[in-house]
Amino acid sequence: LIESIAGLESSASLAGNFVRNCWYVAAHEDELDQDFISRRILDEPVLLFRTSAGSIAAIADRCPHRLVPLSIGKRSGDAMQCGYHGTVVSADGRCLSIPGQTHIPRDSGTVSYPALARHALVWIWMGDRGLADERLVPDMRWLVHPQWATAKGYLRIEADYRLVTDNLLDLSHETYIHGSSIGNAEGESIANFPAAVTIEDDCVVHARRDMYGITPPPAWTGARQISGTIDRLQIATYQPPGINMTEAGYRPHGSGVDYIFLARVMHLLTPERANSTHYFFTVSRNYRSEDTALTAAIAAGNVATFKEDQLVLELQQKALLERGDDRVPNMVIGLDGAAIQGRRLLERAIQRERSDPQSAVLPFPLVPDIARWREAPAVSS
Amino acid sequence: LIESIAGLESSASLAGNFVRNCWYVAAHEDELDQDFISRRILDEPVLLFRTSAGSIAAIADRCPHRLVPLSIGKRSGDAMQCGYHGTVVSADGRCLSIPGQTHIPRDSGTVSYPALARHALVWIWMGDRGLADERLVPDMRWLVHPQWATAKGYLRIEADYRLVTDNLLDLSHETYIHGSSIGNAEGESIANFPAAVTIEDDCVVHARRDMYGITPPPAWTGARQISGTIDRLQIATYQPPGINMTEAGYRPHGSGVDYIFLARVMHLLTPERANSTHYFFTVSRNYRSEDTALTAAIAAGNVATFKEDQLVLELQQKALLERGDDRVPNMVIGLDGAAIQGRRLLERAIQRERSDPQSAVLPFPLVPDIARWREAPAVSS
Amino acid sequence: LIESIAGLESSASLAGNFVRNCWYVAAHEDELDQDFISRRILDEPVLLFRTSAGSIAAIADRCPHRLVPLSIGKRSGDAMQCGYHGTVVSADGRCLSIPGQTHIPRDSGTVSYPALARHALVWIWMGDRGLADERLVPDMRWLVHPQWATAKGYLRIEADYRLVTDNLLDLSHETYIHGSSIGNAEGESIANFPAAVTIEDDCVVHARRDMYGITPPPAWTGARQISGTIDRLQIATYQPPGINMTEAGYRPHGSGVDYIFLARVMHLLTPERANSTHYFFTVSRNYRSEDTALTAAIAAGNVATFKEDQLVLELQQKALLERGDDRVPNMVIGLDGAAIQGRRLLERAIQRERSDPQSAVLPFPLVPDIARWREAPAVSS
Repeated sequence: LIESIAGLESSASLAGNFVRNCWYVAAHEDELDQDFISRRILDEPVLLFRTSAGSIAAIADRCPHRLVPLSIGKRSGDAMQCGYHGTVVSADGRCLSIPGQTHIPRDSGTVSYPALARHALVWIWMGDRGLADERLVPDMRWLVHPQWATAKGYLRIEADYRLVTDNLLDLSHETYIHGSSIGNAEGESIANFPAAVTIEDDCVVHARRDMYGITPPPAWTGARQISGTIDRLQIATYQPPGINMTEAGYRPHGSGVDYIFLARVMHLLTPERANSTHYFFTVSRNYRSEDTALTAAIAAGNVATFKEDQLVLELQQKALLERGDDRVPNMVIGLDGAAIQGRRLLERAIQRERSDPQSAVLPFPLVPDIARWREAPAVSS
Repeated sequence: LIESIAGLESSASLAGNFVRNCWYVAAHEDELDQDFISRRILDEPVLLFRTSAGSIAAIADRCPHRLVPLSIGKRSGDAMQCGYHGTVVSADGRCLSIPGQTHIPRDSGTVSYPALARHALVWIWMGDRGLADERLVPDMRWLVHPQWATAKGYLRIEADYRLVTDNLLDLSHETYIHGSSIGNAEGESIANFPAAVTIEDDCVVHARRDMYGITPPPAWTGARQISGTIDRLQIATYQPPGINMTEAGYRPHGSGVDYIFLARVMHLLTPERANSTHYFFTVSRNYRSEDTALTAAIAAGNVATFKEDQLVLELQQKALLERGDDRVPNMVIGLDGAAIQGRRLLERAIQRERSDPQSAVLPFPLVPDIARWREAPAVSS
Repeated sequence: LIESIAGLESSASLAGNFVRNCWYVAAHEDELDQDFISRRILDEPVLLFRTSAGSIAAIADRCPHRLVPLSIGKRSGDAMQCGYHGTVVSADGRCLSIPGQTHIPRDSGTVSYPALARHALVWIWMGDRGLADERLVPDMRWLVHPQWATAKGYLRIEADYRLVTDNLLDLSHETYIHGSSIGNAEGESIANFPAAVTIEDDCVVHARRDMYGITPPPAWTGARQISGTIDRLQIATYQPPGINMTEAGYRPHGSGVDYIFLARVMHLLTPERANSTHYFFTVSRNYRSEDTALTAAIAAGNVATFKEDQLVLELQQKALLERGDDRVPNMVIGLDGAAIQGRRLLERAIQRERSDPQSAVLPFPLVPDIARWREAPAVSS
């Protein structure tokens, strides 16, 4: 009667634009205050939960028996019980019990993925599990530092994750997409100020833009209480495949002093499928860190702002699908410099993994060097 | 001007998982109290109506002229008149009149299918019409027997009909999917009691499960007024391609007497397309047959219960489509015994028809042998 | 950094059922009272606007830079500014400015199309622009003649434009689809009166139907105040690829006088995609031309009537897609005569353009010869 005993194999039909041997963000850690969550990552169905010991379980969201999503079942201690016939699967994907029999076939189970929580983020490794070294998790310790405050959020974007990075590496779009919040006015267009693009260690792109003598964008004049003519600094950083960072500062124009640190924004991109992206973001500051109203306002403001990007990115994706060719830019202009470098580094990382399946992405040091910035001034509240 | 006169041919692009030379349920008979109904069967558009003589017409729901659905037209006596240009098609698919001309080309018309009403069901033959012998209609006379009462219903399931049979041949799922109605509690899990699987006449699977000393499931303690510790009997029967039957009984635990007959449920599956199924069900009993409130409660309860299956089956179908391979179970367990036998018999029937297109499915005798059961006890109403 | 400078090429993947070297209606002219409109035509995304000089701009609705729709941006004088990074594209598709740089690469830009407004319609040329001769625009001067009044409207039909013409060349469908408005009653079915089909100049089909001694259809007895037994005249005209005209008249039955002119209806079809159609219509009369209430009633009535066609055409399209073959009629009948001739002329036009890419469609003279008709009688208002 029993023909074969087989575990559930990981899908081999992965699209070619993914790096696998690296840590991706799978969730904000507090999402796991729920019993479990289900999320498609690199086109695989993943179920995530936190065990009673505090570790993170990440297994295929498919019962090894008949492939129904385990997420229609329920937590059973540190395991999941399938909602169809009651098979129990452990946090590491092994079958713990099979209804109606005491024999548990060796090797029965479902795919599991290395995963861990660090600095308020849940990270997952979708590649060769033998390479899943915890030391390769990007260090974002400021996200939980007591002197810092972080606003955060999540959007699901119906677009290729590479288009999202393109967007983040050319912030001149802020004038057009975000004119009512973080964009300079068109007369002082961000594009007027050239970005200095540098490549570091052959693995990270930086695009720095100093904008002299401009009016603060609308979002800075309210809760942030910035006024007068300023110099504005933006540094966009990208490490393939999915880590984007934007740092922002300002100073009174003509003051000649160091920039005052305003915010460090992480845009952590994890491919859901070839043409859709999990977009986790954090916005951190090292001042007024106990002002929870400011934190909430920043979170709400950034969701609103990033939804403006979402609209454009999804229409761009649709246009590319209609054309049947995903190559962009169609016409290369000077503003594309950083994005083109980012694409090159990503393509190199994909090729490196193909030619050496034992290679893995080494994270670039991200911990903020606050000494570079002046402290934020006191603000009457 | 007139280039050719051609009838509408039946589609040749049928998926390989259908048996064609057999009677399928097309409708509950009272659905034909309407002028006509349209329903896709084995991936063909079918229009059904009852003629004034009481026979059942089943023709392709396509006008032979320009292929618009005849169902946007209207009944014209015992024929259908197309709602586009008025072509009239008879109950057996012949063109009766063509507007603007008196000449009716020989052989003009649309596909018709043998169909008939029996025992409150409408049956259709989608295969070789020369083989459509009325004696091959499964005998379900109890559905209209005056001493019996039958509750009935219909669901459209977005899943392969084979997955629905898999579900019905392993009722251990009741503990997990139907815990609030017909499932035993988890401590007395149905899977704990082994099913005896037998094959009869090389064409029918039976899976019998005797569950000793359990608490009645929640749905039995209300209107059914069953209490105390009981023995529960389930017999699941499957005849390919689409006939599933579940019989249920019980007795006080330790009484040693025969089981009391509770219900006979037919789950009559007709493929709509490769991955969707018409699910007609009937729930029959030979006691309290005039208690129409009980009949209505049973109908409502079963719809609610089967919708729980529907949710799981549709998620399972979606998972299989994502994997790109419809083979299940992925990991074979003991509980799958009956379902695997059912798949084998179905596959054999498909192969038999392929190797001998003149073969047809002989129905297995289904008429209940009530003598096997004790009568239901009187119940205060 | 800059790898290549390239304009946006027109898609080469066009379906085979389109004529390109001809003028298609792109819009009713008053639609361009807005800043701009976006409309897919022959499967290409087109953005249309009227310049300050009054000419019509038609360009691909794709920014040459990153292909996002220019229609998410805004008008900037006589140009469009992209809403993503601010690239400005002129009315003839050239890049006028690129943010962040002064150099505008030669040949940078997006596709533009010849377009013009004439007689309250906007016309576009989707083929070889060297052939876009304004003298080839069909002459519909009555649409703006002061003694005429025109009701107009637009529907988007989810069906191949060829199915819409088939519909218009066999008006016998009115009895069945439009029985409550412009269809004769079934006893006086339009199909009872043969249509005289003629081909003119090898490029136009006419189907003329004289219906003697009938009751006026329901829509004629209200605002139109037509009563008694009448003779009804319909002339359907088609010139490939997209121009359909219906002329209607009537006279008291047995009067022997000329027909009284009732209406001239243009059904101007422009393929959106292979299986969807822009349907612009106009309904013109040369009497009661200042009766704006009548004009409004005619517009509303025709939208309601054509939505009845839409329902049938979309179901027919769906049936053809399910069958996987777009050939119709499936069974040719006498009523199909004009439609078959129309398809032949269209197919010939497609083949002519394929064998001679320098050929273009010469419009057939359409200006009404009102002398053929009697004047409409005075009506008490």
